[in-house]
Amino acid sequence: MDAEGLSADELFCFLKAKRNEDRSYSHILSSMCTTPHPVAVQAHNLFMETNLGDPGLFPGTAQLEDHLIRWFADLYQEPSAGGCTTSGGTESNIQVLRFCKKTKQVKNPNIIVPASAHFSFEKACGMMDVEMRVAPIDDQYRMIPDATGELIDKNTCCIVSVAGTTEYGMTDPIPALGKLAEQEGVHLHVDAAFGGYVLPFIDHAPPFDFSVPGVGSISVDPHKMGMSTIPSGILMVRDERVFCNLLVETPYLTTKQAYSLTGTRPGASVAAAYAVMAYLGRTGMKALVTGCMENTRRLIEGMEAFGVPRKVTPDVNVATFDHVSVPSPWTVSYTRKGDLRIVCMPHVTRDVVESFLTDFGESYVSHSN
Amino acid sequence: MDAEGLSADELFCFLKAKRNEDRSYSHILSSMCTTPHPVAVQAHNLFMETNLGDPGLFPGTAQLEDHLIRWFADLYQEPSAGGCTTSGGTESNIQVLRFCKKTKQVKNPNIIVPASAHFSFEKACGMMDVEMRVAPIDDQYRMIPDATGELIDKNTCCIVSVAGTTEYGMTDPIPALGKLAEQEGVHLHVDAAFGGYVLPFIDHAPPFDFSVPGVGSISVDPHKMGMSTIPSGILMVRDERVFCNLLVETPYLTTKQAYSLTGTRPGASVAAAYAVMAYLGRTGMKALVTGCMENTRRLIEGMEAFGVPRKVTPDVNVATFDHVSVPSPWTVSYTRKGDLRIVCMPHVTRDVVESFLTDFGESYVSHSN
Repeated sequence: MDAEGLSADELFCFLKAKRNEDRSYSHILSSMCTTPHPVAVQAHNLFMETNLGDPGLFPGTAQLEDHLIRWFADLYQEPSAGGCTTSGGTESNIQVLRFCKKTKQVKNPNIIVPASAHFSFEKACGMMDVEMRVAPIDDQYRMIPDATGELIDKNTCCIVSVAGTTEYGMTDPIPALGKLAEQEGVHLHVDAAFGGYVLPFIDHAPPFDFSVPGVGSISVDPHKMGMSTIPSGILMVRDERVFCNLLVETPYLTTKQAYSLTGTRPGASVAAAYAVMAYLGRTGMKALVTGCMENTRRLIEGMEAFGVPRKVTPDVNVATFDHVSVPSPWTVSYTRKGDLRIVCMPHVTRDVVESFLTDFGESYVSHSN
Repeated sequence: MDAEGLSADELFCFLKAKRNEDRSYSHILSSMCTTPHPVAVQAHNLFMETNLGDPGLFPGTAQLEDHLIRWFADLYQEPSAGGCTTSGGTESNIQVLRFCKKTKQVKNPNIIVPASAHFSFEKACGMMDVEMRVAPIDDQYRMIPDATGELIDKNTCCIVSVAGTTEYGMTDPIPALGKLAEQEGVHLHVDAAFGGYVLPFIDHAPPFDFSVPGVGSISVDPHKMGMSTIPSGILMVRDERVFCNLLVETPYLTTKQAYSLTGTRPGASVAAAYAVMAYLGRTGMKALVTGCMENTRRLIEGMEAFGVPRKVTPDVNVATFDHVSVPSPWTVSYTRKGDLRIVCMPHVTRDVVESFLTDFGESYVSHSN
């Protein structure tokens, strides 16, 4: 960069050129993020300069955070639940480990995660000197409660289960895990970063929320299926007193204590997350999720018609298949085991699915011949 | 919220009402955040949907992150320095502790921070089981090198110093601390969350950057004096190989390993931070900082003319005074010791300072009579 700086025209010419080097969501089938909803973008702009790290300066914005938490408390069937917003799933999971570790107060704490857990737990455990014990999953990629129970000892401060796994879109048997957690007196956390915006809007979905006895906390990310702006996470807790373990003094701010992990933090993405929920309502979210699930089913049927079998019938809008290559410009992903993985986010419309299937079919048939 | 959702008109009527309950920056004298620069907001919108947690999807945005890091490497006088963007000062400081702890590999690690350090170190040490040793500060609120040296032992993995303290705007004697760090073989981190955008643009400012032998890392926040959007932090390291200690596997993403603390993370605020620097250049930043420092001096002179003495002559645009009350609607803050503290951010223009001094003078004189 020059000492003198660019003109606004020069700057935005350059920025637009860089933005054009990014791939377009229109052909991204691998991401759990999506184009934010227009009301999210508009709300984000209205609250662009707000800082929830100093909520006394921004009481109106802080109320939106409260409204969002209350909305999820109702959705997750425990109106007295507490919660806070975060920068996303990783921070939410770190916060859970922080309070579990503080509550348990043992010298060598451990947590139990399913083999399907997100890699953020490896990071969190590594930095916090918590042993991560990995529970096996069954042939449907779900955590096995009996095997989980065998890993528990007096130093276990948390069991982590997943509602909508990143790789295979599966939900662990949370009622059985909740029973285990209650029996053993261990906190059960549900990582619903993806599924927390999906499962409540599917009929007969596997249970995962506070209606399940033993569930102590749930994390969910508005910047995934909540169609909100990045960064946006929510951590819900059945008993908000757990946050008291995280308080530190915050001199020279308008509030004198805080339990958030970060200091300065955006009000904009909180307002955006609120805006999407207030605008769509449960009815609109149900319509959105129904569409994504229909597209997932159509994709699975289409791929199987080409002779590429599904790995599993997912609980959420993540489809996986035997390993095959896909033609450009489509961007897909592969699981740790090498299976093809496609996430049917809202930008992956029915037209996109059909277009992908057409391209895939032509490429696959020609390679097979 | 209703099941059916609000209309866009209803939603934004409500959101605007909430936004109006927030205080306006025009009377906020307590914050280290400010109204973002217009080019930051425009760039933020252009990159709103980008996710640097999956940089292979957004190679253009990832290049802006590289450009921003290179700009700071040059500014901080070590062109081969590495770096990464974060959500702000707390995450940057956590990342430093993560790699210091991993590098040192001792059973009971400790770090040494000055009594003036930001409260984020208490959080970071608490969650990471690192002992926080507090070094005393002198009557100018600066860390005392000799006393710091006495706290070092074989388990010390990091010395933290501050360039532009949150409370008093002071810079620690970093050359002496760098010498100590080199002698003892300990990493020296400079928390320049605030001062990192100020000191390089002041003539004869105290040295704090990589030109000082022994400085291993520097954190700086674009969402403070960088006039960028929240959340935005940068962590610069003299030797980027330290990040290798933080790598975890990231299956199903376009890159296979990552060292960031968070997963999904905004490209928008990175583009915004880049935009402000590219637009203003060093010349524009110098003009901005010069204005803030002149306003700080004018505020100090004005308050002293009323008989309210400064606590110290600050290195950056933070002014502190004996404890006095200020009239509404001005929002000020007080340090842990109870001293009045005012941050002369870019939104605190000369007119704002004069207006505050007039209001303060009327209120103070009438109370004194």
